[in-house]
Amino acid sequence: MASKYVYSFGDGTAEGRAGLKDLLGGKGANLAEMARMGVPVPPGFTIISDACNHYLQNDKALPEGLREQVEEALAKLEQGSATKIGDSKNPLLVSVRSGARISMPGMMDSILNLGLNEDAVRALAKKTNNPRFAWDSFRRLIKMYSNVVLGVPDAALNTIENQLKREREVRLDSELPAEDLPILTQMLRDEVKKFSGKEFPLDPREQLWSAIEAVFSSWNNPRAIAYREMNEISHDLGTAVTIQTMVFGNMGEDCGTGVAFSRDPSTGEKALTGEFLVNAQGEDIVAGTATPRPVQEMQELMPRNYTELERIARNLEKHFKDIQDIEFTVQNGKLWILQTRAGKRAAQASIKVATDMTRERVMAATDAFLRITPQQLEQVLHPIIDPSAKREVVAAGLPASPGAASGKVVFNPDDLVESQAKDNGEYILVRSETSADDIRGINAAVGILTTRGGITSHAAVVARGMGKCCVVGASTIDIHEDKDEFVVGNRIVTEGDWITMDGTTGEVMIGRLPTVRPQLSNEFQELMLWSDLVKQMGVMTNADTAADSKVARQFGAEGIGLCRTEHMFFQQDRIDHFRKAILAQEKDERLEALAQLLPFQKSDFLDIFQVMEGLPVTVRLLDPPLHEFLPLPHDEEGLIALAKRLNLPYRRVRERVHALEQFNPMLGHRGCRLGITFPEIYEMQVRAILEAAYELMRNGVTVLPEIMLPFISMEEEVALLRELVFATAEQVRSEMNFPESSFRFGIMIELPRAALIGDRLAPYVDFFSFGTNDLTQSTYGFSRDDIGTFLPAYVDRGILKKDPFATIDRSAVGELMRTCVERGKRTNSDLKIGVCGEHGGDPESVKFFHQVGVDYVSCSPYRVPVARFAASQAAILAKREAGNGSPETRSKILPPTPGTSIPS
Amino acid sequence: MASKYVYSFGDGTAEGRAGLKDLLGGKGANLAEMARMGVPVPPGFTIISDACNHYLQNDKALPEGLREQVEEALAKLEQGSATKIGDSKNPLLVSVRSGARISMPGMMDSILNLGLNEDAVRALAKKTNNPRFAWDSFRRLIKMYSNVVLGVPDAALNTIENQLKREREVRLDSELPAEDLPILTQMLRDEVKKFSGKEFPLDPREQLWSAIEAVFSSWNNPRAIAYREMNEISHDLGTAVTIQTMVFGNMGEDCGTGVAFSRDPSTGEKALTGEFLVNAQGEDIVAGTATPRPVQEMQELMPRNYTELERIARNLEKHFKDIQDIEFTVQNGKLWILQTRAGKRAAQASIKVATDMTRERVMAATDAFLRITPQQLEQVLHPIIDPSAKREVVAAGLPASPGAASGKVVFNPDDLVESQAKDNGEYILVRSETSADDIRGINAAVGILTTRGGITSHAAVVARGMGKCCVVGASTIDIHEDKDEFVVGNRIVTEGDWITMDGTTGEVMIGRLPTVRPQLSNEFQELMLWSDLVKQMGVMTNADTAADSKVARQFGAEGIGLCRTEHMFFQQDRIDHFRKAILAQEKDERLEALAQLLPFQKSDFLDIFQVMEGLPVTVRLLDPPLHEFLPLPHDEEGLIALAKRLNLPYRRVRERVHALEQFNPMLGHRGCRLGITFPEIYEMQVRAILEAAYELMRNGVTVLPEIMLPFISMEEEVALLRELVFATAEQVRSEMNFPESSFRFGIMIELPRAALIGDRLAPYVDFFSFGTNDLTQSTYGFSRDDIGTFLPAYVDRGILKKDPFATIDRSAVGELMRTCVERGKRTNSDLKIGVCGEHGGDPESVKFFHQVGVDYVSCSPYRVPVARFAASQAAILAKREAGNGSPETRSKILPPTPGTSIPS
Repeated sequence: MASKYVYSFGDGTAEGRAGLKDLLGGKGANLAEMARMGVPVPPGFTIISDACNHYLQNDKALPEGLREQVEEALAKLEQGSATKIGDSKNPLLVSVRSGARISMPGMMDSILNLGLNEDAVRALAKKTNNPRFAWDSFRRLIKMYSNVVLGVPDAALNTIENQLKREREVRLDSELPAEDLPILTQMLRDEVKKFSGKEFPLDPREQLWSAIEAVFSSWNNPRAIAYREMNEISHDLGTAVTIQTMVFGNMGEDCGTGVAFSRDPSTGEKALTGEFLVNAQGEDIVAGTATPRPVQEMQELMPRNYTELERIARNLEKHFKDIQDIEFTVQNGKLWILQTRAGKRAAQASIKVATDMTRERVMAATDAFLRITPQQLEQVLHPIIDPSAKREVVAAGLPASPGAASGKVVFNPDDLVESQAKDNGEYILVRSETSADDIRGINAAVGILTTRGGITSHAAVVARGMGKCCVVGASTIDIHEDKDEFVVGNRIVTEGDWITMDGTTGEVMIGRLPTVRPQLSNEFQELMLWSDLVKQMGVMTNADTAADSKVARQFGAEGIGLCRTEHMFFQQDRIDHFRKAILAQEKDERLEALAQLLPFQKSDFLDIFQVMEGLPVTVRLLDPPLHEFLPLPHDEEGLIALAKRLNLPYRRVRERVHALEQFNPMLGHRGCRLGITFPEIYEMQVRAILEAAYELMRNGVTVLPEIMLPFISMEEEVALLRELVFATAEQVRSEMNFPESSFRFGIMIELPRAALIGDRLAPYVDFFSFGTNDLTQSTYGFSRDDIGTFLPAYVDRGILKKDPFATIDRSAVGELMRTCVERGKRTNSDLKIGVCGEHGGDPESVKFFHQVGVDYVSCSPYRVPVARFAASQAAILAKREAGNGSPETRSKILPPTPGTSIPS
Repeated sequence: MASKYVYSFGDGTAEGRAGLKDLLGGKGANLAEMARMGVPVPPGFTIISDACNHYLQNDKALPEGLREQVEEALAKLEQGSATKIGDSKNPLLVSVRSGARISMPGMMDSILNLGLNEDAVRALAKKTNNPRFAWDSFRRLIKMYSNVVLGVPDAALNTIENQLKREREVRLDSELPAEDLPILTQMLRDEVKKFSGKEFPLDPREQLWSAIEAVFSSWNNPRAIAYREMNEISHDLGTAVTIQTMVFGNMGEDCGTGVAFSRDPSTGEKALTGEFLVNAQGEDIVAGTATPRPVQEMQELMPRNYTELERIARNLEKHFKDIQDIEFTVQNGKLWILQTRAGKRAAQASIKVATDMTRERVMAATDAFLRITPQQLEQVLHPIIDPSAKREVVAAGLPASPGAASGKVVFNPDDLVESQAKDNGEYILVRSETSADDIRGINAAVGILTTRGGITSHAAVVARGMGKCCVVGASTIDIHEDKDEFVVGNRIVTEGDWITMDGTTGEVMIGRLPTVRPQLSNEFQELMLWSDLVKQMGVMTNADTAADSKVARQFGAEGIGLCRTEHMFFQQDRIDHFRKAILAQEKDERLEALAQLLPFQKSDFLDIFQVMEGLPVTVRLLDPPLHEFLPLPHDEEGLIALAKRLNLPYRRVRERVHALEQFNPMLGHRGCRLGITFPEIYEMQVRAILEAAYELMRNGVTVLPEIMLPFISMEEEVALLRELVFATAEQVRSEMNFPESSFRFGIMIELPRAALIGDRLAPYVDFFSFGTNDLTQSTYGFSRDDIGTFLPAYVDRGILKKDPFATIDRSAVGELMRTCVERGKRTNSDLKIGVCGEHGGDPESVKFFHQVGVDYVSCSPYRVPVARFAASQAAILAKREAGNGSPETRSKILPPTPGTSIPS
């Protein structure tokens, strides 16, 4: 017996259902599901995608049994509607549409009005008492069919139509006199013959089969292939084909067509939203030949149909557990639903819909979570240009890093660093392109604007990493660096002038526009609360100041996962003390300089611990190479000035600076290596941390300090520095007469070697924290600062599809992480695993971290909500993959909490 | 029943044997083995190391049964010799010596002449008719016992002796009148009492047990602990204790003592070699109170004993399958063998002995191989100072990198680079210490001399890596850089003066001494031939020139595993063409410049292929970052000169140079990344390689070119560049009308990511070649150029025990290699695996590579013999570990070859 290739639907029943998307495609499966639900869909049947695959793989031979099954389904259609295909009295008209498992909108072909020939047209004209409609339908069929099946270009047939319209001196098709339409169809058929050498077939069965085969073949048309490549969709899926009875919205005033969302896609408001047109076909809306009305007006014009539509929309929403985007047609007073699918929506709406639907028990919270993309959440968090401000857009580039920024234009990065240091003002770096030399300038700017380069150019990559607003490739801007100005159109912008950029759209505006942080809606807050109940990973933040810590805490950070101590040294009143410590020749001299720094470090920690009361604060001991704190070796002036300021011999300063220079600082004398060579620095830092902590604890503040060593590559490093840390801690404890040492101790895993010897490192520590930036660097062998030089070529040539600094490389970096976690837990079952670094705020990466068994991620304050949310999604997905039952039962495993209850 | 703790030996029989070293220690096991062989050893017994461990772990309690077993063994001794311990007529005297499984010479304690008290002394005097001897033995016992057991410092007792000698106005102990000796012993006993509060015990049993316990305890004396730490010997082994009947070589003219090697340890000559003294104890040789005679003179003085000694030496050699270092004593005409062990020997001797013994069938070739350390082989290969030259050593530092070098002194590395470029002369860089800045200077020098730093200082590490002669920490040298001179003692050495250094001894000499490469002996050549029959890994060489290739081929290289192409660009007549290509703005401009380079590259390959006829030549396409070919960005003069020379606008040169600058060049735009961004360069190189190859092949020369891509981290890179290489190859083939493309294609594995995705890379290539230097760098996250800044501290503090750039880190780098090989072979079973980089010449690493399944290693020409040899040792060891039977049967599995036969 032949396989079942054809699934019928209609009249409250269907052979298929929503779960069979793989076979029936999204469209066919939803039509079947709707039919089962009793939603009025025009009856029809779907040929499954297997048939398409068979056809494409067997030299365009139809699979055995398909012809018979289609005939049978067609007979059923005819029977149900008392019509017959090609009948001269009651002709059956059908549409033939593609529909793949994964939606590829507009990529494949469809044909409407199949079944028409001259006899059928006349019958239709008579039956509807509308000859214009009937002939116009025929005209549309000829054009679509000839284009799709016979390959006649649209342009050729449009020329014919335009000629006639010119002759008749009219502009629109609809202005042609009805009696011209039979003539026009004949003219079109003649042109088709001329072009393709083939007659337009008048046999409806020939029309039907040619159409089916054409849809099969359209799976492999060039634009469909390109779309699949772009979207990483497999080429093996094939398309289903749905043949459905035609309904018409253009048969009179009791007809119409429209599109409706079950809720407002912009705001999420629970109200039918959309457009409709009386006496029109769907394509008329698209073509813009008439202005559609708001769907609400149907309440007056077609009240019965509106009520039905509203009821159906509600049911569909409940059934498919999501906002619905519904196409409908009213034919002679009867409502038909042509299609329904999940509605695309704005970020704010997405959040409101998810929370509303959860509360309305349309769906479980867990399902609601999965409907929102973390990117949507992020949109809600970025600063935007005040919507009420008037924008004068003078240029547009590529939106390289989201958010909005206003600042004064500076062309030279060094000047920018200097100005910013002076007045702490807001500056935008404007350059043709940036290079590694410009990092300090980029760091000091509020935004970066380049005239060259793509979204993987140096500026773009670096800015995204820093979370800075950035627009690249704004090529209409012409920089005249020698004159300290840029020209765009007829405007000249001089250094120091204000501009504003929108990194989400790529727009560049003259002047200083106010930027605002969007208000976070109640729904957002609620979503976050639920999110925390679901997620299993902790979400901490990277923060080096009390101010950042405060922001992060407001965003729900559960602690500080990475507090970098070196930034504390860079401040004006401290840096020279630290330089003195670096330049010291004797230990005593160094100790003295460090003693000056101690109160500063301690007061920083006092502030941060206070803000983070009750939450852990993970302090990373000094990491960057020491030369970063000193002038460049060939900056003679800087060296002389420094020597003078510190009252040191110039020669010594110069020698030390030269000695500290490194070829590859990223791979050099940095991280815990500093703790080995200059133990006094780490001792001072440990002292500052614990003195601050114990002082507060004595005053009743709960402080949870954690001390973390960076850049470990050997077991021996951990062993030695652990001793140093614990010895210093014990000293502080006894000096302060504190009952017992109270802190946790951990290391960063940033190097492949550390990852591979996790089992040997774990016994020494309470936690590992993956520094995924550096781990990516060393695993790939490329540094973030230098990739700008070759990355654009890599993206152009398709070598690198994703930026591994944005989304974790699961294959190698991921394997190292997985290995490290497994080995670490093998020798220390209490080991906690964290991730600090940009990946901690990337939803894709967060999902992977969950799978690997990471206990917490840490990211910049503004990404905390996204990370919390991504963590909850990761937890839900992991449970589903583990096969933990249906969505309904799944929501029950959420922990019940007194404060917040999750509707399920 | 108590465990067996005591193993007796003597009179042609023994309870122990050589295989029980773990229990009996090296000394005890060998004594037992000799007794079994019928060698005349003074009878005795050994307490096994378990007893020591029990004693140390149980608060100095002797294990149950030990006392009884010792008494029993003692009784047997007494019985056999008709003596009794402490007997007033025939007293038994014994020695008590330590002996661990692994030899720790001089680290633990021994006591001789135990059993003496006043009665026994008198009996001995009477029996030997030599009161001086008897009392002197007593004196020695009192001193040793008091020192070892009672902790009386040697100095205290020496003072007493010296006082008496002063009184008697004599210089040597032996000059004291015999009648003074009883007085002296009494004085010593009084002093012992004063110092320790304890009487020297006269009960021989008390002496014996205290001595045994003292030897047990000496396992944990500070110097033994330190020795074990240094040599990575476990602290849990414990020492065995051997109690043996004393024999005396100082009882008259028919007595004597000596040391003999079964072969000459300097030359390997098969002749008994050594020294002996008539009427003396062993320690007299050590003390240098008399000048020993060559052992051959025994032929005249004690012909019977000499013949016996010679026979025994031969037997021992045959039995232990190695050159023997034998201690013997002749007591009243009877020869006793006190100890035998493998003899230390010079490098040349080692090779000769191994080959001779193999030919004499003393042992199998495979065993002979294992007796030679690859380091010995290396010694034979390094240049040395002409032995006939007169050395005026003015300073000595640490021998940091072996070999000898003569050169003119230069203090500033930049000056050195300049001078060397001008006259191609030999220069030695002299500096207090070196830093990363000095790399180019080090590279251009023939040797490096520093006044500070240890053998892991920057200079030492870098020089070893480059295979350059280096002496560090020559602290008596005082550099006055401002005067361009250094002062050492009363000598002043000015810049430009010649000095000579010996990197193997650390000596520094004034003047230009001739250096010579040692003649390679026939035995060396033979050993190498055998070696090649045993080894399974190929040994290739790293060579960039025809000259290097020639040397390597003479040393037995089986091909070139790494031919770096960039060095070819650095030559004066080429570099500017290449600079032009780098600075080109348009592709055409670049192609033109590269076209100028093509003939140069091609002619290089023609030369190399010719030299390596019939052997594979693996060419690595361009690897280093491009800025290395250009002046430094802040070298304005250099930039201006370059612009002028190339006739390019200064601005462009400056901009390009700045754009090419990198923060971390090691992790930047280099390796195959250059092939992606500048495909024209790789195309030119592929063309040069294949045009050269096909031209020669057409003339009947067998050329086996291999093309290798550096610094791969992604599958996509290989895919894309493979296309480039094969497309260019096909073009060359068709242009030259060559029948078919003929080359192999591979990649370097230098990054953790490449290692981890070996399965995905392997299908594209014929071979992987591990770049273990870079793989070590990226796995550890430290660059070779920069470790000088912290490595000394790491070594000082015991964090880093081995330089991972010298010997492969098996734990992490090794795991990556193993993983990569496994995965690569999984998807490409024909995949060949190579290693190029310094580790390829390191014997320890070579052994590991063999285990991992590496097919060939590639190293610098002078290391090829060492690598060949290490590879054969690796193969032998691997077979043994796989349990392939006894050494005898093992040697039979060697492949029989017509030319060279291996005696077995």
